[in-house]
Amino acid sequence: MYDLKQFKEKFDPVLNQYLNEELNKFNSNTTDPLIKEFSSHAKDLLMAAGKRVRPYIAYIMYCAAGGKEEEKKALEFFVSLEIFHMFCLVHDDIMDKANLRHGVKTEHEFVTEKLQQGGRVGNIKHVGVSQGILVGDLLFAWASKFFTDCRNFEIGNINTAKDIFYKMVDEVILGQMIDIDLTSRVDPDLQLINEKTRLKTSRYSFVRPMQIGASLADPDNGFADFCEDFGTKVGVAFQTQDDYLDIMGDYKLLHKNILGDVCDHQPTFFTNYVFTHGSDAEKDYLNQVFGKEMNDEQRSKVKKIFIGSCAIAEGQKLIAENYNQAKTLLGKADLGKEYKQKLSELISLVENRQS
Amino acid sequence: MYDLKQFKEKFDPVLNQYLNEELNKFNSNTTDPLIKEFSSHAKDLLMAAGKRVRPYIAYIMYCAAGGKEEEKKALEFFVSLEIFHMFCLVHDDIMDKANLRHGVKTEHEFVTEKLQQGGRVGNIKHVGVSQGILVGDLLFAWASKFFTDCRNFEIGNINTAKDIFYKMVDEVILGQMIDIDLTSRVDPDLQLINEKTRLKTSRYSFVRPMQIGASLADPDNGFADFCEDFGTKVGVAFQTQDDYLDIMGDYKLLHKNILGDVCDHQPTFFTNYVFTHGSDAEKDYLNQVFGKEMNDEQRSKVKKIFIGSCAIAEGQKLIAENYNQAKTLLGKADLGKEYKQKLSELISLVENRQS
Repeated sequence: MYDLKQFKEKFDPVLNQYLNEELNKFNSNTTDPLIKEFSSHAKDLLMAAGKRVRPYIAYIMYCAAGGKEEEKKALEFFVSLEIFHMFCLVHDDIMDKANLRHGVKTEHEFVTEKLQQGGRVGNIKHVGVSQGILVGDLLFAWASKFFTDCRNFEIGNINTAKDIFYKMVDEVILGQMIDIDLTSRVDPDLQLINEKTRLKTSRYSFVRPMQIGASLADPDNGFADFCEDFGTKVGVAFQTQDDYLDIMGDYKLLHKNILGDVCDHQPTFFTNYVFTHGSDAEKDYLNQVFGKEMNDEQRSKVKKIFIGSCAIAEGQKLIAENYNQAKTLLGKADLGKEYKQKLSELISLVENRQS
Repeated sequence: MYDLKQFKEKFDPVLNQYLNEELNKFNSNTTDPLIKEFSSHAKDLLMAAGKRVRPYIAYIMYCAAGGKEEEKKALEFFVSLEIFHMFCLVHDDIMDKANLRHGVKTEHEFVTEKLQQGGRVGNIKHVGVSQGILVGDLLFAWASKFFTDCRNFEIGNINTAKDIFYKMVDEVILGQMIDIDLTSRVDPDLQLINEKTRLKTSRYSFVRPMQIGASLADPDNGFADFCEDFGTKVGVAFQTQDDYLDIMGDYKLLHKNILGDVCDHQPTFFTNYVFTHGSDAEKDYLNQVFGKEMNDEQRSKVKKIFIGSCAIAEGQKLIAENYNQAKTLLGKADLGKEYKQKLSELISLVENRQS
């Protein structure tokens, strides 16, 4: 049973090969060299980085549920999860107006910069966004098509895994719709923030990949509830920790300025805590800077508000509680020892991350 | 065997029911009433209009290839094509910055206007576009998921139909990438214009739907080449006619200003003809207004250039040739009489359209 790093070493060549095959087919239908570069950049984005957490937990649960097919076939199957994930990121980056992803130019930015090199007319930024939307669509197409190509497993197993895959797709799209909606709301409430976390983090990053892996091995695996409960706890802890690091993290490790959520008018557990439990002065100040770029002095003041209002302490409590509950659930689960061990290592890894 | 109008009457309730089921599942995962409106607007767009040409020709070929399953199951299958088509349109409308589609607000415009009614902060137009991207993604998800839900046919038939479906998806995405690329090129060439027509019109609107229908009935149907040859001819004629109507059509019937392609810097057979065969004065004038809004006098002058340079006459010849070749292919095809009759009626319908 691989750890996450070993898994990535096995998984990446399989992912790379699949992308090469799809790109060759796709690019053979045009003579336009630039469009071939645009589509190929999606592969550069996928191969540049990414921890492969989603395929990895799918793989752990596949093994835990008694998956017996040869390893490469199982790894091939989980390629769909990673390509789907990059589809989400390519479209997210357009919505977030992000320029970099894992140190590589985002898709729409890559296209825009290429076209800005000359010989083009019109609204180049809009063309860049349009091509970014289309390359995202292409990745979604490949993730979906994947199930069609993959005939290595019993049809009942593939169908059950696919049913869960498409539940996950609806959930992450809805989660992102709520996320976008929250950024423009004057009065974001905790219920919507929690819905977003449940859909976009718990279900998408943990529950569904685990269930997909288990179902591929055995449609009647009996782990659905464990995946739901365990994945939900890990997801809430993970998302809250993400939001915590955005306030308290080291900007050098994060490769970005802290307090991005406040600047982006992105409500989180922490902003919500200040808005509902803070003093009037704390609320007023956070409200003044919410959705605006800040200077160092303002950042420092906002950070103090998050600490002084006890938002940070309460958030840390929530993170610890959820990770602990996840560990308790794992301890009780009817899983083989080595799979428990790997899931436990994974929790430690995410729990101790600094970025 | 239904004609197109009768088909739509049978098909639309099936489409409507499928959309209702998906929307109910999707919307049950959030308490946000506005997001429910955003997702539901996709159904309004789908049900407002649309001739259902793609599912109809798939249905003709399904019957021609001996499809024997009960009718409703076949209609259900082709729902995926129509939902996929609306996914393309929702994303296209973002790229084209279009406000209306079949007289209904486009998805991103609908969201933007809803949010502009008050109580929101930030860049509302960008939020509208972001939600539009996501609702498009959702439609693509439903079109893809459809194959998973649909277990009414032999798995071999579904798999063959799906293989062709995903070829079509890659083709239409590539066609749209070329389309977008062409709008920003200083020197668009005929080869790229032809690649776009082949992928985005011939393959997407005719060849692949026909092959999907035939394969669903019988994976070894023997009609693949006929679909390819016939669909290619009809597609070239259809696209060239579309571009012709944009110059010579009646703006009252078109519900839009003529010469939209010229204003949008969209190269066509006709613009290419002027740029390669026109006099220097004709080339210069077209170049001056290419990609710009025009007043009536300018429009009138550009129209005269298209006529005077023989672009219109040559385009009409191309349209007639391709429709005639399609009719000849149809005459020779080894298809049952009533299916030939319906395909022939369909050609007449598109050939005689005024908008």
